[in-house]
Amino acid sequence: MTLFNHPMLAFLSAGEADTLPLQMLVVFGFAKLLAEAAQRLRMPGIVGGLVAGAVIGPSGLGWIQYGELLHAMAELGVMFLLFQVGLEVKASELLRVGKVALLSASLGVALPFAAGWAIMAAAGHPRIESIFMGAAMVATSVGITAHVLASKGVLSHRTAQVILAAAVIDDVLGLLVLAVVSSMAKAGGADWAGLAVTTAVSIVFVVAVAKYGTRTAGIVVPRLTQSLRLDEAEFAVAVTFLFLMAMVAAYSGVAAIVGAFLAGMVLAETASDHLHTLVRGAGELMVPFFLASIGLQLDTAVFRSGSTIALALAILAAAVITKWIGCGLGAISLGYQDASRVGAGMVPRGEVGMVVAQVGLAAGAISQPVYGVAVFMAVMTTILAPPVLNFLYKGVPAGPRPTPPSVELG
Amino acid sequence: MTLFNHPMLAFLSAGEADTLPLQMLVVFGFAKLLAEAAQRLRMPGIVGGLVAGAVIGPSGLGWIQYGELLHAMAELGVMFLLFQVGLEVKASELLRVGKVALLSASLGVALPFAAGWAIMAAAGHPRIESIFMGAAMVATSVGITAHVLASKGVLSHRTAQVILAAAVIDDVLGLLVLAVVSSMAKAGGADWAGLAVTTAVSIVFVVAVAKYGTRTAGIVVPRLTQSLRLDEAEFAVAVTFLFLMAMVAAYSGVAAIVGAFLAGMVLAETASDHLHTLVRGAGELMVPFFLASIGLQLDTAVFRSGSTIALALAILAAAVITKWIGCGLGAISLGYQDASRVGAGMVPRGEVGMVVAQVGLAAGAISQPVYGVAVFMAVMTTILAPPVLNFLYKGVPAGPRPTPPSVELG
Repeated sequence: MTLFNHPMLAFLSAGEADTLPLQMLVVFGFAKLLAEAAQRLRMPGIVGGLVAGAVIGPSGLGWIQYGELLHAMAELGVMFLLFQVGLEVKASELLRVGKVALLSASLGVALPFAAGWAIMAAAGHPRIESIFMGAAMVATSVGITAHVLASKGVLSHRTAQVILAAAVIDDVLGLLVLAVVSSMAKAGGADWAGLAVTTAVSIVFVVAVAKYGTRTAGIVVPRLTQSLRLDEAEFAVAVTFLFLMAMVAAYSGVAAIVGAFLAGMVLAETASDHLHTLVRGAGELMVPFFLASIGLQLDTAVFRSGSTIALALAILAAAVITKWIGCGLGAISLGYQDASRVGAGMVPRGEVGMVVAQVGLAAGAISQPVYGVAVFMAVMTTILAPPVLNFLYKGVPAGPRPTPPSVELG
Repeated sequence: MTLFNHPMLAFLSAGEADTLPLQMLVVFGFAKLLAEAAQRLRMPGIVGGLVAGAVIGPSGLGWIQYGELLHAMAELGVMFLLFQVGLEVKASELLRVGKVALLSASLGVALPFAAGWAIMAAAGHPRIESIFMGAAMVATSVGITAHVLASKGVLSHRTAQVILAAAVIDDVLGLLVLAVVSSMAKAGGADWAGLAVTTAVSIVFVVAVAKYGTRTAGIVVPRLTQSLRLDEAEFAVAVTFLFLMAMVAAYSGVAAIVGAFLAGMVLAETASDHLHTLVRGAGELMVPFFLASIGLQLDTAVFRSGSTIALALAILAAAVITKWIGCGLGAISLGYQDASRVGAGMVPRGEVGMVVAQVGLAAGAISQPVYGVAVFMAVMTTILAPPVLNFLYKGVPAGPRPTPPSVELG
């Protein structure tokens, strides 16, 4: 972020007054204002945060630039977002998950990935860029899906259970895809032996943590927390562990957010409600900076080219259709109507799709126009899903279960 | 913060890996580790956070430098710390507060302020520097006081009630003193008319917010929060208001943290327990960066001069004695023993004293050695008080009231 030098705010930057509160106010306040506007237009609030970045950023009013401080705050934000998602994912529940959810998630990952790769390759894009687009099309956002189902009061419906379970598996598969793909980007597509090692290291890291981390943490964390005299010892242990796992992930060649997600999943079984709320507070503060930073990086100029617009529409159509059909086919044993609900519920991509695009952009694996297309796809699937779900769940009575705050991550 | 270039960490900075998680881990992890160590030595955890900064900073291991990012995170941390303190201060309770607490707080503000000013003036320091030292000696830390009383289980004792009420008044008086003093530092000590205007503006701002803010917020905030469809609308409104008030304060010539404190106090009457916990989560994440940043700025070299050591010991002795006697005299109607407990309970200065010193340093009003003396005073009063309280409360039975998490701000 830079100081304000926009004419409209010039009166504010007179003198030597501390400008940090104003910068925080503009980013946080706009993100929340437009999140509210998005909610009123029946869209997830996450869309508002993204648009806020575009509005106040270089492609809009030009009040805020993307600099070192905002980059760091955005990274903290996305680490806390994925840590929160991880805290909702109990490894033990993953192991108990039904065939329907697993099949639905797997087909819902394979089809979009293949379609994205194929469309990009057919359009003549480089191999690594095509793979990144496929990867960006993989991950359904647990938060957005859960938010829509909770606000409709149908979380107790059997399709909602399948969607939630499948979305969790999908998230793990998507993060695995991201781990592999980001190490491919780092290897430069040439050093295949190194790539195999990197991939193996990242898979071993992920699988070892997922398989043994929870059991170990289940023994170590409660004892450690209880033995500490520190205030809010559980939060201190959890956040230190989050930063530790993010660091290990980063130095293992995996994205830091993979470590953040795994840290959350490892702690999911033992985390208290109080820890959930504290982490949510930290996330509520930091996540708007992540969302805004994505909008800030959006270059609307990419949509001036006709071929980019055509690519964006093709990718969007493929993202919707392949996820809907893939997840629906996996859940066809529930009957046509419920399979369709599951498929539609899995359509919204969100932060994870944009994270993949951001990782690809940062690694130089994808170009600015392709990044714009991926962000367009992630935002539009998120915008399109809620009204479709509204239609498909018409007549389904709202269940007795109250909206649990812990799954409202959108 | 800069990248790690210390030999011990050189292996980590090889390659282009993302170093932010490592930086966060070092600052947050060390702050929590030493906070735990401090607790085990029967000191408030806040001391550990300060020492952590000194250990990892330029005067210690040299792993972390004080740069733009850490400065911003530290400022966010102190804004959330004072916002949290504000949330504990209900303006309505301030108005209902007993004579004992008011008298105790007032004498406990006046005596240290006068003593600090006098000692500095006698030692030949400039007027503004002398006044700043007096101001730094004013504020008792609510958090540290409450933490000590809660951990001893004597929060229901009548002296504890007086200490808590007096500490709240003391905090407000201390922030008023800071407002006046920081505007004096800005005026440069020459423009008396401008100073009078600035002082008037800051007092009007503070008084208007304290007097009318709560009533207005009591009507506006719940309606606004209820009308919003945003997730965690109360948090979004509260934090936007926090940044808004901090900005208005900064542009009114008052420190941003004064605005943060007032924002908290305005919302104290209407804040839900859920908001308290969310804000606490954000604070738990950010405050260690504030504490560490103070330690990072500590220059141990100042204590190589004999005259500085003499000044530091004189200021520390005055800070302990004047607060103890001032607050004790104000509470003498409770009898000698309880008056002594009240006085001792008010001795620990904490974050507020260091904030005053930091404001003075940033404004160029105080020199580095005097800043070092103020930090020494704030840290040492905090370290000395708990064992003294331990002795004075020997034989007082622990009350039935459980430790309330909302007052544990240390």
